[in-house]
Amino acid sequence: MTNILILGGGGMIGQKLAGRIIAHDTFKGANLTLFDRAFPAVGVPAKTITGDASDPAMAKTLAAGRPDIIFSLAAVVSGQAEAEFALGWNVNMMAMWHFLNALKAEHDASGGTYRPRLVFTSSIAVFGGPYPDKIDDEFLSAPQTSYGAQKAACELMVSDFSRKGYIDGLSLRLPTICVRPGKANAAASSFFSGIIREPLNGVEAVLPVADTVRQTHASPRAAAKFLTHAAGLDTDLLQGRRALNLPGFGCSVAEQIEALRRAAGQKAVDLIKHVPDETIMGIVAGWPRDFAPTRALELGFEAESSFDEIIAVYMEDDLAV
Amino acid sequence: MTNILILGGGGMIGQKLAGRIIAHDTFKGANLTLFDRAFPAVGVPAKTITGDASDPAMAKTLAAGRPDIIFSLAAVVSGQAEAEFALGWNVNMMAMWHFLNALKAEHDASGGTYRPRLVFTSSIAVFGGPYPDKIDDEFLSAPQTSYGAQKAACELMVSDFSRKGYIDGLSLRLPTICVRPGKANAAASSFFSGIIREPLNGVEAVLPVADTVRQTHASPRAAAKFLTHAAGLDTDLLQGRRALNLPGFGCSVAEQIEALRRAAGQKAVDLIKHVPDETIMGIVAGWPRDFAPTRALELGFEAESSFDEIIAVYMEDDLAV
Repeated sequence: MTNILILGGGGMIGQKLAGRIIAHDTFKGANLTLFDRAFPAVGVPAKTITGDASDPAMAKTLAAGRPDIIFSLAAVVSGQAEAEFALGWNVNMMAMWHFLNALKAEHDASGGTYRPRLVFTSSIAVFGGPYPDKIDDEFLSAPQTSYGAQKAACELMVSDFSRKGYIDGLSLRLPTICVRPGKANAAASSFFSGIIREPLNGVEAVLPVADTVRQTHASPRAAAKFLTHAAGLDTDLLQGRRALNLPGFGCSVAEQIEALRRAAGQKAVDLIKHVPDETIMGIVAGWPRDFAPTRALELGFEAESSFDEIIAVYMEDDLAV
Repeated sequence: MTNILILGGGGMIGQKLAGRIIAHDTFKGANLTLFDRAFPAVGVPAKTITGDASDPAMAKTLAAGRPDIIFSLAAVVSGQAEAEFALGWNVNMMAMWHFLNALKAEHDASGGTYRPRLVFTSSIAVFGGPYPDKIDDEFLSAPQTSYGAQKAACELMVSDFSRKGYIDGLSLRLPTICVRPGKANAAASSFFSGIIREPLNGVEAVLPVADTVRQTHASPRAAAKFLTHAAGLDTDLLQGRRALNLPGFGCSVAEQIEALRRAAGQKAVDLIKHVPDETIMGIVAGWPRDFAPTRALELGFEAESSFDEIIAVYMEDDLAV
């Protein structure tokens, strides 16, 4: 039986992924374990382990279970990694280092037969400006945040441990995930979801940037599909370049708002209040906007092709009726 | 008085750099300390400290001296990092991690006034194929060796610790250094120097690859100049991209041999024996060849502009007469 481990299984994407795996029986009766620091009160029905991913002893314990497929989603988010430098590097990079070494120890102990698939969620935060109009698959990683640097460092490790055959890993650079269900969070990107989610729930939303701001989006459902697709991918096709820019739908905030109008009318749009925030405008100005993710598309990764679809997914999957 | 620390000061480039700093009084009466695991019996006259760079306690001791300028050259070389995986990551990445954290601790203890310049020697090994005809400054880092992955990970750390203001660092991706003085070493690139150095010393040399193989070269003297130039550079000019592809002279082995003929005649050329080596041919085929290092050139980094010059530098600086 396939053993599956989701690191960060308590988070939004971890829960979506676990739910999808169970609902679709993606891995045919697989044994699913979720690891995280904490879990939602009402979560996906799966075995959970609670602990600290940056603890080397915990890394050994998790590796000792010899999971066949590992999804690594756990991270200190961007804003916190920037505010708490040591914590960010420790959780976002050193935890991966300890975990990869623990997996290598299992590989060695197995006489080389144990070689798990590891799907690491990286981020477009590995990029830094100035940007070309579209970021292609050969654009350099020059992060301008600690979070981006930590993700990029993990990509290097995942690639090298894989090249040596200790694991069989790849890194997925997720676009902005939208529409995130639940409450607004402290992330500077939170408003991209908020300006859709809040009005659909009859609540006012704040737009802190100009509506000309562009971003590439994929739904939480698309994110879960990216991850399961990556778990089954023939990694020989990656030809040694194991970090992938994933597709999404690139559009301006104005186009997001037009899609909201089509989905829920002018009344919903009227709930968006434009309250410029210089800090958020500054952060967002440093982000990449449009991508040409040729390799990922060729490898079969699929995202939504309109913002209307992204809204429809939110309404289907998460809007309380 | 300026305190200068060279990590890897016992190696070939470390000694060239130290010798140049002393001979030119580059930093006006600076206090120079060399750190390495071992030093040549007859070396540059400077204070030396012997120890293990990957020891966290040693990192603290070195940082406690609060050097104003640090040149970080110490590394396990490419072939050894590939053969000894754990050693390579430990010395080439974790040692930098410990050292940067030790420098940050000094920065914090100083109330933020201590912020050393750190010049890290990275490598074109951060690149991996397939390559464009010329690698420009925006080409991705996708290393295909452990050495390259470790160097790339260090670049990310140097950039992030610098962006946060704990240090003021930059990373120099050196081209192939040629003509290396002394004996051939185990590096797959050793022959690029050997086919020039050995004949100039009246000794036979083996060429293991076709003479159509291209590579980008800079002399040891150019390498030392890169490093001192980087030590004085206004890093604001880097605009947050703190890893630089450095210039060199790109040519084929055939062009190297023609330059040798011009410098030392057919008799020297006749000492080169073509003995194809499939292993070395395979390794060299994975290396980047030609660069368009626009940024470094604009920032004033200079290398030789012909292979004749590179031979002349060897004959002036290193050929025993």
